[in-house]
Amino acid sequence: MKPSFISLDWGTSSLRAVLVSEEGAIIEARSAAGGVMSVKDRQFPASLNAICSDWIETFGCPIVASGMIGSRQGWREAPYLDCPATPATAARALTTLQISDRVDMHIIPGLRCGSKTTMYDVMRGEETQIWGADVEPDSVCVLPGTHSKWAFVDEQSRITRFATYMTGELYGLLTKHGILGRLMEFGVGDKGAFARGATLGLNNPAQATHAIFAARTAGLMGEVPATGLPDYLSGILIGVEVASALAAEKLSTERPLYVIGDDDLCCRYEAVLEMASLRSVRAPDGATIQGHVCVAREAGILVSESA
Amino acid sequence: MKPSFISLDWGTSSLRAVLVSEEGAIIEARSAAGGVMSVKDRQFPASLNAICSDWIETFGCPIVASGMIGSRQGWREAPYLDCPATPATAARALTTLQISDRVDMHIIPGLRCGSKTTMYDVMRGEETQIWGADVEPDSVCVLPGTHSKWAFVDEQSRITRFATYMTGELYGLLTKHGILGRLMEFGVGDKGAFARGATLGLNNPAQATHAIFAARTAGLMGEVPATGLPDYLSGILIGVEVASALAAEKLSTERPLYVIGDDDLCCRYEAVLEMASLRSVRAPDGATIQGHVCVAREAGILVSESA
Repeated sequence: MKPSFISLDWGTSSLRAVLVSEEGAIIEARSAAGGVMSVKDRQFPASLNAICSDWIETFGCPIVASGMIGSRQGWREAPYLDCPATPATAARALTTLQISDRVDMHIIPGLRCGSKTTMYDVMRGEETQIWGADVEPDSVCVLPGTHSKWAFVDEQSRITRFATYMTGELYGLLTKHGILGRLMEFGVGDKGAFARGATLGLNNPAQATHAIFAARTAGLMGEVPATGLPDYLSGILIGVEVASALAAEKLSTERPLYVIGDDDLCCRYEAVLEMASLRSVRAPDGATIQGHVCVAREAGILVSESA
Repeated sequence: MKPSFISLDWGTSSLRAVLVSEEGAIIEARSAAGGVMSVKDRQFPASLNAICSDWIETFGCPIVASGMIGSRQGWREAPYLDCPATPATAARALTTLQISDRVDMHIIPGLRCGSKTTMYDVMRGEETQIWGADVEPDSVCVLPGTHSKWAFVDEQSRITRFATYMTGELYGLLTKHGILGRLMEFGVGDKGAFARGATLGLNNPAQATHAIFAARTAGLMGEVPATGLPDYLSGILIGVEVASALAAEKLSTERPLYVIGDDDLCCRYEAVLEMASLRSVRAPDGATIQGHVCVAREAGILVSESA
């Protein structure tokens, strides 16, 4: 297979590089810990070269990147694109950097929705995952993570709007730096505790900052063992997120939600969605790369026909 | 004035000692940074002696303590007392330690409410503040803090139940360790940003983990300056807390809520309560000491009549 471009999924905590063929297939995939937040003194070129300087030198092919690399803390700020957005509108709004005499890097813009009077919301990277997940028109996508996203795709397959829930970041902060972590013992999964937490969260979307305190009191009262408290808190937070989304949106109980992301997190969300009587379907792996292929085709970076 | 007992307000982050007269008045007050969390290797006696060994030796009077000193992380765990609770029931449930041949320390129990089927809630120290705040029967008390409390006092002046909101801890975690803090510049107050945040929070009690993300997007979009973002987040969190309490409880718009605690925090809560059309009245300073006096009288530690 002949290389056509390098796909970079460059997020906060990791960097994944894939050499993509003219048919849009994976020739080789690599990953590194060099996420945007771990790059010191803005040494982004060094991180890029460490993962794929050989590809750049040997093939001289362009790079397509998405994620926090286009944020203010990243290599170059790629201005947000307003919703509704598609691979075609993103392809017309790429931010391009020259990496060498013959190689350019194209950063896919993040998306923006909302307004000053309500609140703005933003995403970087998830739009590309959605475009690559091959979702049906008129769908809702759930992307669990540090900043979980619930995104709405319309009849014309445009991302029309989305909402961020800080579920993953709250879990990290509360367990690593907060009082809730003091009673916890990590490393042992407890599905029962997770389900109990999820029930509490699902029943109390309007009591989020109160309900999380149950991860202390249930430990103090011996209701949940120390080894179960991490999953109990995870359940509360995901339960609150799902119930908050249900409170804000008319979600169909017939049409499945697309769940896109890391396997462990997706399993947790699928369990809670089922508890809330919502159907879900898992998006195939490799959504980010397929999203890069879509945008690269629209931008004329990848010119051959699909295999 | 003749000393009768030493009042210790021994919380997570500070230690306050007051020498109380037989009339229940303050003879001398001292404070130190020796909160429970800063005491190393359980050296509680050293912290106590550092603040008031002279009083203990000279007057040999008993000590009455409340707060996290009675927690599992404190000097001695004082088992929780179930609601409904009064100074009289607390006086019958003191946990007593011998400090010296002639001096005992009596730790006031924290309170517990709720159940396994809903969730338990706990407080340590706030019960004493409420008893000392001289609130009218059938009242609601709001105690802002790391773990804010909304407590309900019935016709017989018993604390019947309460709810904890982790507002202060979330503010600390999100600003000190989280991504929201990255865009913030601290040290400059911004009442306008606070009010805008409070409006967002008040309007979105069922979207708490989503609404806090506005403290990032409003910064990214230039809607709130970096110096206003700390107060914007503070407003969102307090707004969510007040709206959550309103969603959970029938609160009278006629009868004022008692606001008890630190002046800066109380001012913030009073502003948000007013935005929510709730009346409030500030409890007098010194509520903790007065609470100790109430419990000491009920326990027979303070035997003279009130001045």
